[in-house]
Amino acid sequence: MRIDIISAVPELLESPLNASIVKRAQTKGKVEIRTHNLRDYAYDKHRMIDDRPFGGGAGMALKPEPFFHCIEKLIDERDYRHIIFTTPMGKIFEQSDAKRFSLAENLMIIAGHYKGIDERVKDAFATDDLSIGNFVLSGGELPALIVADAIVRLVPGVLNDSESALDDSFMDGEYIAAPVYTRPAEFRGMRAPDVLLAGDHGKVEEWRRERSEELTKKWKERNNSSEQRYG
Amino acid sequence: MRIDIISAVPELLESPLNASIVKRAQTKGKVEIRTHNLRDYAYDKHRMIDDRPFGGGAGMALKPEPFFHCIEKLIDERDYRHIIFTTPMGKIFEQSDAKRFSLAENLMIIAGHYKGIDERVKDAFATDDLSIGNFVLSGGELPALIVADAIVRLVPGVLNDSESALDDSFMDGEYIAAPVYTRPAEFRGMRAPDVLLAGDHGKVEEWRRERSEELTKKWKERNNSSEQRYG
Repeated sequence: MRIDIISAVPELLESPLNASIVKRAQTKGKVEIRTHNLRDYAYDKHRMIDDRPFGGGAGMALKPEPFFHCIEKLIDERDYRHIIFTTPMGKIFEQSDAKRFSLAENLMIIAGHYKGIDERVKDAFATDDLSIGNFVLSGGELPALIVADAIVRLVPGVLNDSESALDDSFMDGEYIAAPVYTRPAEFRGMRAPDVLLAGDHGKVEEWRRERSEELTKKWKERNNSSEQRYG
Repeated sequence: MRIDIISAVPELLESPLNASIVKRAQTKGKVEIRTHNLRDYAYDKHRMIDDRPFGGGAGMALKPEPFFHCIEKLIDERDYRHIIFTTPMGKIFEQSDAKRFSLAENLMIIAGHYKGIDERVKDAFATDDLSIGNFVLSGGELPALIVADAIVRLVPGVLNDSESALDDSFMDGEYIAAPVYTRPAEFRGMRAPDVLLAGDHGKVEEWRRERSEELTKKWKERNNSSEQRYG
């Protein structure tokens, strides 16, 4: 799989793409991630990537031309099944989107910044627009990294057996995994649950299932989740 | 404001904390962000930070001792109003949380990794536990960065006038801002809306309000939002 990320602040993307499982996925050759500096595609004299928005108002908008140049160059080179825009008005990203995207050979993720990207870029190219949630961020770079991380983990061969993620929270719908405990069994007077220490596999599974059901119920209550929400 | 972030993979945090508005907030002296490497607080011979989970199962859990050492050292140095854990089972983070946190003088954010943190750490210290959404990530580092970015933008003096964020999407509840357009007025046959080009301030405001209402309605429909959801 190849993932291209286009950003006005690509240096922001560096360390998360070079750490942990996302790094290993690239080292293993399972995923190739390329970042593109929007400014490299501004061909005017001053390499301008932003300008004041039409109609006035605070902040700067990202100009259309550099995005068109960059996206069209990439599209010429290979087929992209998804061209994803991270934007507040997008669909809320969830695990089922990550699964869908993880099947693609080539993906593009476009991160906005400042007051946003000239709307004509999205009109021309977007196959998907995603939001990470109900809050204000400085740009779409962190959401792009979140989307990339969630996708990369699902590419076959990226996780090793001991990381196999089938029992992770949210791996399969609204499901919260049971809490984890590790050595020491007792620490500052706090003891790990006896059932986990005893190591009866059947009882451990039962305890985990029960805790998971409790936590999932609590999660749904506090987040007012419902069938409607993630329909 | 001071923000301390504790992580087993602190190198992941570097570039986002040194870019864009979060960087400027620190340069201006408005916010001090310190990252802490969990491994520096593992005092045993092998500096172990993880171990197999009690009860068996895939993956590794983060041990309690290094967290206790690090968090207790910080608590000794200053008062933290919030000690935030990023965890799948948390409350879904939203802008109202960012506003609440932005009032604190000192904040701590604890990022899990691998299969998670020994539950006793959360039991002992957490004032808040937050989730960014319904998807599986490699760790709590990207969520911690999202939370930090959303908070830092709200600290007085961080944004300059032209960035003042009152009209940003989600700044005040479920609200999607109108799309932005900038020069050129016509590009590849696509023209920016005439009302924005004409520059009649009243009509621009009306157009933006209408577009914003449309987009907010569409956002709520596609994300099945409701009063319940973000009650």
